[in-house]
Amino acid sequence: MRGREAGLIFGSGETGERNLITDVPGVLVGHCTVDTGDVHTGVTAVIPGTGLAEQAFTAAVHVLNGYGKTAGTVQIEELGRLETPVLLTNTLGVGVCLDALAEYMTDMYKKAGKELVSINGVVGETNDSRISDIARRAVRKEHVFEALDSAASVFELGSAGAGRGTVCFGLKGGIGSASRRIRLGSETYTLGILVQSNFGALQDLTVCGQPLGRQIAAGKDREETDRGSIMAVLATDLPLSDRQLKRVVKRIGAGIIRTGSHMGHGSGDVFIGFTTANRIPLHKGAVYTVSALREELLDKVFRSVIECTEEAVIDSMLEAEPVKGIKGKRYPSLKEYMK
Amino acid sequence: MRGREAGLIFGSGETGERNLITDVPGVLVGHCTVDTGDVHTGVTAVIPGTGLAEQAFTAAVHVLNGYGKTAGTVQIEELGRLETPVLLTNTLGVGVCLDALAEYMTDMYKKAGKELVSINGVVGETNDSRISDIARRAVRKEHVFEALDSAASVFELGSAGAGRGTVCFGLKGGIGSASRRIRLGSETYTLGILVQSNFGALQDLTVCGQPLGRQIAAGKDREETDRGSIMAVLATDLPLSDRQLKRVVKRIGAGIIRTGSHMGHGSGDVFIGFTTANRIPLHKGAVYTVSALREELLDKVFRSVIECTEEAVIDSMLEAEPVKGIKGKRYPSLKEYMK
Amino acid sequence: MRGREAGLIFGSGETGERNLITDVPGVLVGHCTVDTGDVHTGVTAVIPGTGLAEQAFTAAVHVLNGYGKTAGTVQIEELGRLETPVLLTNTLGVGVCLDALAEYMTDMYKKAGKELVSINGVVGETNDSRISDIARRAVRKEHVFEALDSAASVFELGSAGAGRGTVCFGLKGGIGSASRRIRLGSETYTLGILVQSNFGALQDLTVCGQPLGRQIAAGKDREETDRGSIMAVLATDLPLSDRQLKRVVKRIGAGIIRTGSHMGHGSGDVFIGFTTANRIPLHKGAVYTVSALREELLDKVFRSVIECTEEAVIDSMLEAEPVKGIKGKRYPSLKEYMK
Amino acid sequence: MRGREAGLIFGSGETGERNLITDVPGVLVGHCTVDTGDVHTGVTAVIPGTGLAEQAFTAAVHVLNGYGKTAGTVQIEELGRLETPVLLTNTLGVGVCLDALAEYMTDMYKKAGKELVSINGVVGETNDSRISDIARRAVRKEHVFEALDSAASVFELGSAGAGRGTVCFGLKGGIGSASRRIRLGSETYTLGILVQSNFGALQDLTVCGQPLGRQIAAGKDREETDRGSIMAVLATDLPLSDRQLKRVVKRIGAGIIRTGSHMGHGSGDVFIGFTTANRIPLHKGAVYTVSALREELLDKVFRSVIECTEEAVIDSMLEAEPVKGIKGKRYPSLKEYMK
Repeated sequence: MRGREAGLIFGSGETGERNLITDVPGVLVGHCTVDTGDVHTGVTAVIPGTGLAEQAFTAAVHVLNGYGKTAGTVQIEELGRLETPVLLTNTLGVGVCLDALAEYMTDMYKKAGKELVSINGVVGETNDSRISDIARRAVRKEHVFEALDSAASVFELGSAGAGRGTVCFGLKGGIGSASRRIRLGSETYTLGILVQSNFGALQDLTVCGQPLGRQIAAGKDREETDRGSIMAVLATDLPLSDRQLKRVVKRIGAGIIRTGSHMGHGSGDVFIGFTTANRIPLHKGAVYTVSALREELLDKVFRSVIECTEEAVIDSMLEAEPVKGIKGKRYPSLKEYMK
Repeated sequence: MRGREAGLIFGSGETGERNLITDVPGVLVGHCTVDTGDVHTGVTAVIPGTGLAEQAFTAAVHVLNGYGKTAGTVQIEELGRLETPVLLTNTLGVGVCLDALAEYMTDMYKKAGKELVSINGVVGETNDSRISDIARRAVRKEHVFEALDSAASVFELGSAGAGRGTVCFGLKGGIGSASRRIRLGSETYTLGILVQSNFGALQDLTVCGQPLGRQIAAGKDREETDRGSIMAVLATDLPLSDRQLKRVVKRIGAGIIRTGSHMGHGSGDVFIGFTTANRIPLHKGAVYTVSALREELLDKVFRSVIECTEEAVIDSMLEAEPVKGIKGKRYPSLKEYMK
Repeated sequence: MRGREAGLIFGSGETGERNLITDVPGVLVGHCTVDTGDVHTGVTAVIPGTGLAEQAFTAAVHVLNGYGKTAGTVQIEELGRLETPVLLTNTLGVGVCLDALAEYMTDMYKKAGKELVSINGVVGETNDSRISDIARRAVRKEHVFEALDSAASVFELGSAGAGRGTVCFGLKGGIGSASRRIRLGSETYTLGILVQSNFGALQDLTVCGQPLGRQIAAGKDREETDRGSIMAVLATDLPLSDRQLKRVVKRIGAGIIRTGSHMGHGSGDVFIGFTTANRIPLHKGAVYTVSALREELLDKVFRSVIECTEEAVIDSMLEAEPVKGIKGKRYPSLKEYMK
Repeated sequence: MRGREAGLIFGSGETGERNLITDVPGVLVGHCTVDTGDVHTGVTAVIPGTGLAEQAFTAAVHVLNGYGKTAGTVQIEELGRLETPVLLTNTLGVGVCLDALAEYMTDMYKKAGKELVSINGVVGETNDSRISDIARRAVRKEHVFEALDSAASVFELGSAGAGRGTVCFGLKGGIGSASRRIRLGSETYTLGILVQSNFGALQDLTVCGQPLGRQIAAGKDREETDRGSIMAVLATDLPLSDRQLKRVVKRIGAGIIRTGSHMGHGSGDVFIGFTTANRIPLHKGAVYTVSALREELLDKVFRSVIECTEEAVIDSMLEAEPVKGIKGKRYPSLKEYMK
């Protein structure tokens, strides 16, 4: 169940065709869910487009709160570009994902007749140890390849891939996504968000401005802390420079706060964005051009990001299935509380 | 009228004695309002404590959005300390305030028998040109001295000092403040916020979760953009290192977003925080000690910051008087819409 | 005396016509020297080009060490653009320069038929209190206007303007400048540097790799600390994005270190760069294009920056006149030690 | 051969007992060299001390140039602490090292009777593809464990561990280290550096101020670009806050520049520092104290860092054995050029 089907209204913007990050042309998403015994985890891959052996995508990263282990941020900051798909997984799975990504890119370069000697893999994570036995480090390279190879423009939300074991506002979290069309003059652009939601305290959950968490939590023991993390990936085909993209991804934080986040100490809130409009040729040319938006027009983009993020977080919860945690606690789905 | 008198509830935290930033022992605030003809502006001074010729206060700065002209941030970032009072004024008044602060500190040093050759003045600003004829650059050194000299633990909120000409969510903005007591083990600490509110679009105004702006804006022309800026000063006596203080002031952003901000492009959102618990001796000693909080305990502090900021913003509007702008447009007070 | 006339060799790059920052077409520099009694200070202005009421210049800032009071950095970081000339002065003169810059820009806007309500003035400083009675705060608005109005493509080096009272490696410092031509394919670009040199300990001075400072200091009391600061402004017509420009200005630090700097604690080392190749229209258009260099080609630019900076620092000293300091100590000119 | 044995003088500071990073009490270093067929790579581990399941070490990271893939930087920035040993390896080995570190820490926690659900592994890298067939990704978990398990206070310099395949200034690079004693009042502290040197162009090599690279390169084809990267780890027992430590590690850059670096575009220059003087209890207490140095005293520390880094880089080359690269090119050892 998407929020819109339940009558929820997330701002006045128009969604893309599927209301998914993959509404941005060329962007694909794939999952591999790892689900055996006490292990409930997985990998989600966001592929920015084709031709990664030839060109990079203009990109930016913003760390809202850095209690997180995302790999690949140093080089995105320096070069403003994304060279690989973005992988999401659990906290202790980053190493394996990074290693698999090196192998995946080596093969891609080989197929393109190029030799890979350096690549900046980007892997984000949240901690799914409330639902999954994280210490087993169950993610394997083949899971990563499966997520990458299954990437498509239609993909599952909720308890899939890297969302399999996450908890959000004390309920089941997961993978959420949403998109918006943005009209500037005669042009229409698309912007999409994908989140791995794993943050928040139940009593704080706010759904489209309504303090639903307080109602759900009534009579229960309150969980004071804002545990866990949220990873977000933003894709767009807007003409944005890397600096502008950084401004744009920063606004993901506002969307998250609208759902009730208190930016907890223990949260790794890392946002990665890229635009397909400005590709950077890797091996040729002396001067290339970047299309940028007149700065004032960003306000419209910022609103879309905030709406989109709010919707993606809520949908990650509505689409997720209830589950029993590692210590026996049940994590219900938000949809159980929607009329 | 404070929000609490109007029945508004800003979280469950306990306020300090006056519910002002000056509840933090030693902190004083003074205003000078400059109000003649088309000029409606001023200066607000936050004094962190005594002995600035002998010691600095541990401090941090966070820029939420950098369309702003705050002076003094470079050195706070490098040294993690505040050497002067913090001044707030209008965008084109920063230079005069900085110059006056140099004079003020030179005199203070002289009185302490010391010679001042370098000082890092901190001056923040928002743009009050909708209400005041900013191009006249009406702020003078004597205004700064008046703000500094009148600093006290009781001070006016609303249309005073640097809040004289500001607009917030299309209504009259101004100076707001709030405070919280924070109990950790057997100790009670205080944290206070002061804001100069000058941001937001009317339809976005959210008061304690209620979309009041949408109701007020109904039937009116919508102002799409989130114009203006917000400056915030945070004071506390909590044992925090400069890094922890930076984490704490970052959460001011969450409080602002809860009032309806969309982090507009044209907003200069700069937050400056200091703690009176960790003073840095300027002229003696080889090793000094800093008291820091176990990182996990910051969650409680973060909640207080968010609540406090939300309350300070709303109170800045409730306490402000309606005014006619430079182009004839009336900016009502929020209190006109409260029952 | 320029270093090249004395036979010094600063790398293998080709200089611009005058070996000055003003070799970058459109860039002008002006001084106002304030020299009365115990006051020996001034203002230096770098004008990036015409049309500042219509367009900004793509810009970047890098803080090597932040014991400094430069104003205007927050907005350069956010927007990647320069809206005003860059002023250099003494530590306690920043406020007056900022105020004068607001007046100067208000007038410029008025002449262009525009109303100025916000402007991000950029003012850097170093501390000239060893030579000048800084506490008098002798810089006035008219000095700023004089510096701006006298800006030209030929200008004085050494003890002029903001370089009047500076000390570098225990000798007289001042304003230095140098430029390089950079050939990329069939195009030739120019890059220039201007420094206000006020840093270093005598024994550390290194001139083109030679430990000249150690020789000069022999037999004298060693001054252990690396006092003072250095401001640098970089201009170019290379096609660089703001991110690339930030990478470029960062390399100014390497040039400074080659002259013997130990990056002292008390140094405010702030570098501001702009390119005339990417101007940002302020009031029109939805999309604009930025020309950027293939990242690998930056290596050639980096070398030029390092050479240029080294030459500008050494020339700032060679061109400076010896002077007696405020406490009677004589600060010789480096040229006294050159054969 | 250490540089000092060859008569080289790196400043006037006094070295620690072994002139190694392990002169800082508690710090251990271990290598695993992986050397089979076309593979010449390895892992080097720096262990900050015991008790990592109970306490973290105050830490900081500085990125001089971010063309690098170091993992773990986000959380060091946020929390100012190091939770694991620091591993160094080759560019494509980061994933495996990160994964092995997760396993190593899980076991350590288990032994301490604790359950590990989150850990911030720190892994740095440089690219050894000129000497080693990097695409084979030959580093395995057991190599990491071997490096960690063999850690001791005496360790090999030069072509060992992560230094096996590196090239520095066109000659053979490797692992270098040096240390300094720092006396402040009646106390003596130690500071040590370890580098993995893999940067620079031959003609730029500068040894103690002498342009040795130019002499060696004479008559040869000049390699214009400053290829490769340098990782540096700094350990100390000085009382430094995380902010001060960041200032300290930043000065590693100055040491590197003194050896002739031009801060090449393609260099990943990442510096990680920690102090054993300020340990952060992970599981108990409300308030802890941090010892910090009076800021002015940092100047002495900065000089030590610069000297130490210069010596560590040169010694990494002097201790390295010549080797034939993957494409047949011979990389001589610097010692062949020393008399």
